Order: sequence, then structure tokens, then C-alpha cells
Amino acid sequence: MITIKELLLRYQSGEITPQKYILDAINTIRTISLEAKDPAWISVATDAQISQQLKNLELLSKEKSIAQLPLYGIPFAIKDNIDAYEWETTAACPDFAFKPEKNATVVQKLMDAGAILLGKTNLDQFATGLVGTRSPYGAVPNTFDPKYVSGGSSSGSASVVARGLVCFSLGTDTAGSGRIPAAFNNIVGTKPTPGLVSTEGVFPACKSLDCVSIMTLTAADANIVLDVMKSNAQDRATEAQFHPIPKTISSFVRPIQIGIPSSCQFLDDGSYQKSFHKAIENAKGLDVEFVQVDIDPFVKAGKLLYDGPWVAERFAVTEDFLNSHPDSFDPSVKKIVQSGSLFTAAQGFRAIYQLKELEIEAKKAWAKCDVILVPSAPNHPTLEDLKNNPILKNSELGMYTNFVNLMRLCAVAVPAGFTEAGMPFGITLIAQEGSDNALLELAAQWQLLFGLTLGKSTTKASPAELTINNNNHDSIEIAVVGAHLKGMPLHSQLTERNARFLKSCKSAKSYRLFALPNTTPPKPGLVKASSNGSAIDLEVYRMPAAEVGSFLGLIPAPLGLGSIELDDGSWVKGFICEPYAIEGAKDISDLGGWRPYIKQLEN
Amino acid sequence: MITIKELLLRYQSGEITPQKYILDAINTIRTISLEAKDPAWISVATDAQISQQLKNLELLSKEKSIAQLPLYGIPFAIKDNIDAYEWETTAACPDFAFKPEKNATVVQKLMDAGAILLGKTNLDQFATGLVGTRSPYGAVPNTFDPKYVSGGSSSGSASVVARGLVCFSLGTDTAGSGRIPAAFNNIVGTKPTPGLVSTEGVFPACKSLDCVSIMTLTAADANIVLDVMKSNAQDRATEAQFHPIPKTISSFVRPIQIGIPSSCQFLDDGSYQKSFHKAIENAKGLDVEFVQVDIDPFVKAGKLLYDGPWVAERFAVTEDFLNSHPDSFDPSVKKIVQSGSLFTAAQGFRAIYQLKELEIEAKKAWAKCDVILVPSAPNHPTLEDLKNNPILKNSELGMYTNFVNLMRLCAVAVPAGFTEAGMPFGITLIAQEGSDNALLELAAQWQLLFGLTLGKSTTKASPAELTINNNNHDSIEIAVVGAHLKGMPLHSQLTERNARFLKSCKSAKSYRLFALPNTTPPKPGLVKASSNGSAIDLEVYRMPAAEVGSFLGLIPAPLGLGSIELDDGSWVKGFICEPYAIEGAKDISDLGGWRPYIKQLEN
Repeated sequence: MITIKELLLRYQSGEITPQKYILDAINTIRTISLEAKDPAWISVATDAQISQQLKNLELLSKEKSIAQLPLYGIPFAIKDNIDAYEWETTAACPDFAFKPEKNATVVQKLMDAGAILLGKTNLDQFATGLVGTRSPYGAVPNTFDPKYVSGGSSSGSASVVARGLVCFSLGTDTAGSGRIPAAFNNIVGTKPTPGLVSTEGVFPACKSLDCVSIMTLTAADANIVLDVMKSNAQDRATEAQFHPIPKTISSFVRPIQIGIPSSCQFLDDGSYQKSFHKAIENAKGLDVEFVQVDIDPFVKAGKLLYDGPWVAERFAVTEDFLNSHPDSFDPSVKKIVQSGSLFTAAQGFRAIYQLKELEIEAKKAWAKCDVILVPSAPNHPTLEDLKNNPILKNSELGMYTNFVNLMRLCAVAVPAGFTEAGMPFGITLIAQEGSDNALLELAAQWQLLFGLTLGKSTTKASPAELTINNNNHDSIEIAVVGAHLKGMPLHSQLTERNARFLKSCKSAKSYRLFALPNTTPPKPGLVKASSNGSAIDLEVYRMPAAEVGSFLGLIPAPLGLGSIELDDGSWVKGFICEPYAIEGAKDISDLGGWRPYIKQLEN
Repeated sequence: MITIKELLLRYQSGEITPQKYILDAINTIRTISLEAKDPAWISVATDAQISQQLKNLELLSKEKSIAQLPLYGIPFAIKDNIDAYEWETTAACPDFAFKPEKNATVVQKLMDAGAILLGKTNLDQFATGLVGTRSPYGAVPNTFDPKYVSGGSSSGSASVVARGLVCFSLGTDTAGSGRIPAAFNNIVGTKPTPGLVSTEGVFPACKSLDCVSIMTLTAADANIVLDVMKSNAQDRATEAQFHPIPKTISSFVRPIQIGIPSSCQFLDDGSYQKSFHKAIENAKGLDVEFVQVDIDPFVKAGKLLYDGPWVAERFAVTEDFLNSHPDSFDPSVKKIVQSGSLFTAAQGFRAIYQLKELEIEAKKAWAKCDVILVPSAPNHPTLEDLKNNPILKNSELGMYTNFVNLMRLCAVAVPAGFTEAGMPFGITLIAQEGSDNALLELAAQWQLLFGLTLGKSTTKASPAELTINNNNHDSIEIAVVGAHLKGMPLHSQLTERNARFLKSCKSAKSYRLFALPNTTPPKPGLVKASSNGSAIDLEVYRMPAAEVGSFLGLIPAPLGLGSIELDDGSWVKGFICEPYAIEGAKDISDLGGWRPYIKQLEN
């Protein structure tokens, strides 16, 4: 059981080579996994496929330094509805199988970053299901107790990561297919914002909603994989995707506001509710504030997904195959796909109108919080439960996952302890579009705080393995010293740009403050002194980087934005002044700041 | 015939009062228009409605200065599928009429800016048509020759502006309903990017595509009205809208790249083609460059609109009324709306998939140009033509308009001369989402160059009336002096941020340049001198404002961004230097710039 971060360190230290590690890994899969007829795999890399990839890795590492290959020698698996060149894509329907002409865009990106594909994994057929039992390749058992479902549809991808057979895997997640199996197997399931990651080369479930998801042991690992997978403008020049590439933020302002459902439904004997409350209690150790939110509009939106016309998307892409191969389907999958033929276009549009209304309702919750925290599932069915009620037990599972893609949100399913029965319990952190990296940063802090064992192991990760250091380029700290201070005439230039107040503090003891003559409103000039400096009162704000340009546009000569040293030795951006302007200006450094000077003027 | 800009000047000068002007205007409408049974109007303001609005205007002008009321006392009309409080909304179907509980959001915004509603205008029933004949209130005749159609569906709104009965009007534009009647009546028709302007309180045609459009005599007037109408975040907290508010740009970089269809179909005797070529010939006087583009993917996308499942949206919103009042419909409208019941949801989704593929094809055109210029229509049918072939002649008209909303584009229909038969000929400027104000700026320059008479009049506008002065806040000019110059080590920081090179020039003769010690790569400090300054070599770039924040983040002390005076006396933003850093730094002003200094170092 090894994380991406740890394996990279071992490669870098020379403790082990990718050649050796990958051959061991594929060997383990063949001897332990395949010999036990492990239904998690649909296909496993041949010797030729492995040696070809290792050869490519050698070539790559000649072109680039290892630091430029963020997944250098990292073994991974993909769900078998995602294309890999020279591998079959089955979508868990053998009669449907085909050999794609090229890698899915995301697979290509991962390989270009050094990752090595070890196999393709089992799934609920055509990614239709949340249980992991709807496949002619067998039901994937839960890694903790085979009586329980693995969760699906990305059942195999969760199973092979939870057992440490690969470092990460790709699933797909339209209705929860990445998050549910992650929760049931004690791993991290990352579902990116629609549009952030390409779905080119992924066989569609609901084409307008599908996302490629990531399964890892840690959020920190998911952060590395996600950054490799992100779409760029160049991809978009040739790929027909449904959603624009969202603007991303890498961090939430602290304390993070976390919305907890004011009422939260569970469908079991009470064990999930207990686990949920315990998790929230524990999470109070994070730098967060909890607020209650009404998740009703979200749950209602979720119901549109399976009870409404989006099922027609599943029919739209399989209709021809359904007509030619009516007996090639799993019976539950067939029933669902066929129901998609019954909806009219008018019903489809009306459902979209209804969704838009629910999104407005949902805005009330988003006005109060950065993140909504829900249980990943309302219960954990056994295989026996499923047999008795295959459609209902499946659809219950989507209560906290179905709405997420319809509302263009991002989500990360994170382990949150174990139930009294010893089964994994998981929660999901959900945020508005583009907050993917910020969510992973929070999920990483969650894992650090909870200190759980990884996947199906007794191993815990080190703090370094769990930590994400996102460089926060989304916003900039700006120190103001004069007319922009709270209550001063230009302060609104900050609030109009959504700048958030961070702190009042002093500059390093190396500045001088001058009252600039002939400025309206009166403005000071802050100047770093070569000697005899003072500490000057400042206020520090965090301004969205996208707003800084228009802010600069309002700043007249002789002022500008440069770098300011604070009294704690850190540097932020802030107001600087050109030298010519201070000739003949009044030195007011002894007052220690602009406020006392203005007060003097008023008296 | 008076423009908004001119009327505002007359109010400001005191030459006339809104009270007097509005009473005259409503009088004209009643005596000239209503007495002649003008089918352009469905309802006209009562005396009570006028005096109430004039009272409100007085109150408004007590709260705000006239400068804060950009439409102070400006008379306007709205298409009768847009709600105004205490007016009936008919959608040109008398049996459907209802009294709304409040103003449409856009109507409220216009009234809050001082505009006075004089009446509600005729339309193709339920905004279904491009001809202006499908209404029980009568076919609206073309203002130039009643043998020809007015164009629709916003027929009445075009007619009353072209005849100067109001200064501007609102239409709606789903498939071309604002642009076609503008083109046929020699006025400007502005169709904003979907999402830019609220559709709350507008009875839907295709709810996912509808836009409120603006009819004016000039693009400059449309620019004023559009700025008043734009949605803001506050509106969006309560309104279910289909599209996000687009980011807007107010200007294109010169020379503007204009795409002309490499092949362009016309459906008449050759007269439209001649007019189109003449217009392009004339447009060469603008600061633009023409490139050929393939508009095939656009035209194909347009065909999805009426031949495909989007018609189901028309059915979705009128189904109940259609069932209860089957005889209340115009026969052509009924036929079209009913056809919307035949599509399945799967067909609907497949059409969306197809549209996404066509959008990728269309990107090839957008890679080459900022604006696509097309004829507004392929021909101009007579009422006789319509009678003989009501559906076909109507659908032909949408060739250059149908695709625009499907592809989330914005468009402005602009007069471009007259055909040999003396009828107005119009072209449409189309750009990608958010370029609305930039398009209007170009349209204003077009009008200035062409110098045509306004609407159905012999009046021409003055250059001042035609001119738009958009403050360009989208991008910022930045002067660089050292390591960011072309070929220097930090130049990529500019190109990565899509900064466009504008010019090489010199600073004003009042600067000194210092080589800063201990900087890597070597950097200069540009400092305004109190005396004995030099002119220093600079390069000026235009950087998107949204990128300036991340650029600033890369600039270390003692440098920053402030204001620099150029040798032509203008000021741009650019690199400044803190005073402490030049103590002991080498003065290299005599070299006139950083390049000669670096050359010296290398030798």
C-alpha cells in the first residue's frame, strides 16, 4: 500500500526503480488477483504492454527531468469504459467490445506525465448503477467484507486502489459512480467540475453530465493526478465538450464556511447517522465554521436524474446496439436504458427549466457557505439486499450524489471513519464549479486531522504524504496604508472588487511615511528607508487576482503597487511611491500611520 | 426622428422638458398612428399611465442627478410578450392575454434609469416567425414600402423606432426576431449574448435560447440602453436564467479581424448580393482587416433550430393553452408549435451533441477573426410571397440568424445601404460571447463611415451622436523597460498572459534609468527625475486586466507597477522603482535604454 507521493520519493532517492516496481506490481496482480478470479479486473496489461510502457518512460525521462514528470513510473488502472490504445473497451458488455483508435485524452495526459497503465477495471455495465453488481464479469465484492457491495459503477477502480494494487485509478462519475465506491472502500473519490477534465474517449453514460473521476488513497495524491488531467485551450480546439473549462481556485479563505444539512436522511438502522455526527464532531478541529443549510433543492434536483428525461441520454447512445443486441444487456441496466426511450423532448426541456429553478433555490445555501458536507451515501447495502430489490436499493444510494453534476458542482468523497460493523463510512465535500483544488486542500486537512488507515490496510500516511501545498494564485494579499483604509474615501475600491479584510498590522521597521502634497483625496507615500525606518500602520486585504488590473487602473502617479515587508518579516503586495514625489513632502513617520495624520488635519 | 443622445442633450440644455416631449410623443402616436389603424401597436399608454410615469421621473430626478439617469425622459416601446405592470401581455394572442404582477426585470431597469413606456407592440404570435404577418392584430407593413414584410417577430418594435415614434424599443430575438426586422427597416438591432440580459418576465419562445433585443436608430444609443439592461449578481440571486452572465469586453484590438463568408448564399434576383459586396467594399474604410471564413458549420447549426427538437420548447410552454384553446392560434404558428410535440428526449439530446460538434468546427473560423460579417437576411420577401408560401419564405429568412443563440454568440444588425429597389439592406456583425459592447463600438464606427439616413427619415446623425466612447477596462496598457522587453529573459511573462505588443516608443524626457545591483536576471529601475531627465526606450503592451494580478505577483521588490509618461504626453501603466534601490545603482540613462546596456555587458 503506497501513495503516489511516497513512491515518487523512493524513485527519486534511487531506493527502487520504476522497472522493478512495475514488474513487481503486475506480478502481484497476476498471482494474487487473477489467480483468485478477482472480478475487479476486466483486462490486465500483457508483458508486451508493460515493456512498451517502460521503454516509453525511459524516453520521456531523457526529454524531461523527473520533476517535470509528476507521475513518473506511477502504476494506475482505468475503468473499462475509458479508451486506451491497443486495449479493448468493453463497458462491461462483451458483445459491445471494440478496440479504440487512440487513448482517451486523459489517459494520454497521464501517460505523458509518466504513469503506467496496469489494467482495465470492472464496472456496472455502461456505467449504469451505483452498486458494482451489474456486470457479466461478476459482482465486485467490497474490499472490507464481501457480504457488502463494493459500490459502483466504478467498482473495480475502487477495489484495486483500496487494495494497493495500483497507486490510483480512473473511474467515471455521472450520478455518483466515483464517489459511492470510494466511500464504501475507504479511499478518496474526486469528481471534478464538469468541463475541467476531458471526456473525449470515454463511452458516454449521460453525455451532458459525465465526468472522469479519480480514485486515490489520499487527497494529496488526487491533487497531483487532477492537475495532470485538466483540460486546456489546446484540447478544446478539437474536442466537443459540454461545459466550458471552469475558472479554478486553489484555496478557500479561512475560516472555511461549511454547510451541514439542517435535516439529513439516512436509510439504515441508525448506524450511518451516528457515524455522520461523529465525523462532524471530529471535523471541528479544522479551521472551519459550520452553518446549517437546507439541502432540499439539491435532493430534488437529484431526483430529476433517474426519474426524469436525462435517462434518455443513456438510450440515445445505446439505441442502435440495444436494437441489434437486445440480449447482451444486464437485465437491470436494460430496463433503465429502455425507460429512456419514453420521454419526449418537451418533457426534457421542462425538466431543464425545473432544474434551473432549483438552482436558484440552492443559491440560498451557497450564499452561506463555501462547502456543503453530506454523507456520501444514506446506507450500505449487502449483496443480499440488492438481490431482493435491485432497482430501489441502487437508486437510494444516489441521494447525496445525483444532483452534483446536474448543478455543475465539484465533489470529493473522503473517508470519515468506520461504522460499528467495521465498514468504512465516508462523507462528501461539495463546492461550486472550479473549487476543485480548494476542495482537495480541505480534504487533505481532513485526512491529516482524522489520521485514518489507508484503503484496506493498516498503514497510515505521514503528514508530509497528506499535505497539499497549493500555490494560491487566485488572489493576492495587498497592504494599504492611506486613502484605502477602512472608513477612508477610497475604501470602496476594495469592497467593489470583493477584497476581503485579513488583518491590521504594521510594516517592518524600515519605512517612512510622507503626506503627498496636492493629492485629492489626500494620500500618503510609503517609502522603504535605507536607515532610520519606522513601523507604519497597514491593513492587509486579499483581492481576487482578476480584479487587481482594474484596481491598478485607478491608482494615479506617483503611487503604484509593489512589495511591502510586514513586521513579521513576511512580504505582501502593497502601495509603493515613486522617489520624485517625496521631495518636499512632509515626513509623518513619527505618527506611525495615516489615521493619526488625518485626525490632526481635522482638528 | 431623434436619437437618445440628442434628446438627452436637449433636456440638459433646457431646450425642452420631458413633460412636454413625452406628451407630444404620445399625442403623435394617438393622432397619426392609431387613427390610421397602425397595426404596429397592440396597446398605447393611457393618460393615467403617462402622468404616473412622469411623476415617477420627477421623484427619480430628485434622488439622482440627470447624469445618473442615463435614459432620463426617453420614450420607448416594448414587444407585447414582455411584461409591464398594469399593462396586458398578449403575445399577439388575445385569448392568451393576462395582466402580469410586475414589470419584467429589464423594463424595471429601464424605468429606473428614467425611460418612459409609451406602448406595447405587435409581433408574430408567441414570437414564432421572422415575417411580422402572423398576428390577429394585423400584418405590420414595412416602413419603406407596405408591399414588403416588416420582418418579425419583433415587427411592431422595429416599425415604431424606424418611424421615430419612440427613441428605442425592446424586441425579443430567439432565431433572428430582433435582427431581421431591424435590417428590413433601416435601424440597428442588438441581440445580446445569452445571459447578459435577463429574460425574467418575458413570455418564452425557446426558453433556453431567448434574448431580449434592442432596436435603436444608432449603435451608440443601443450601447446606452444595453448598459442599463445588463444583469448583475443581485438579479441572479433570485432569477432562474439559462446562461451565466458572460464576461464582457468593450473593445476589440485594432485592426479588427473581420471574417467574411467564403461562400454566401442569397435567395433573390441578385440584388442582395450586389448590396452585400458594395457594403464590404465600403467597409474597407474602417480600421479592420478582412479574412475569409467557412460559415458552413454555423448555417448547419442554424438548421437544428427549426428542423430539430428546439421546437419542442415552443410546445413545452404552450401545450396547456394549445389543448384548451386550439382555435386561438394563428394557423402557421399552430402548425409549428404542434410539430414540437413529435420529438423524443433522445432526439433532443442527440441534437445537442450534434450542436457541440458543430461548435468545434466553428472554432476554426473564430481562430481567424474577432467578428463575422454576414448579410442579415438572404432576401426580402413581399407580403404576396408570404401568402403563397408562408412557412418556407419565413424559414429562409433565418439563414444568417438562426445559429447565433444556439452558439451563445452576440450580434448587431446594422444598416448597410439600400437596394436598387430602394429598400433597406442590412448586415449583421457577430462575435463570441461577451463582445457585445465591442461589437456596438464597431457598429458605431460603421454608421459613422456609411453616413446613412436614420430609419425611415431623411435625417442623418451628427458624428457626436454616432460615437461610442467605451472606457476600455478590459485590458491595460503596460510599458516595460528591462527584462520584459522582446527577446529578454522575462518576456514570456507577457506572452503567457496574452499581452499584445502595441508599440516601441520612448518615455517622456523626464526619466532616469538605473542598473539595479544584485538582480537576477539583471533588471533596471526606471525613475522619474525631478530635473535632467532623459527619454528611455520602452515597449508598450496591452494586457487583459484579469491577468495583471498574476503578473504583479511575479514582480519582486524594489519594482512595482505604477504610471509612466510617454514621449507623446500620454500616460500608461508600467514599471516603477522604489527610491531606496537606486542609492548606489549605476545610472545608465545616457545609453537611452536597457538593450544597449545589456549589449555592453555582453561585450
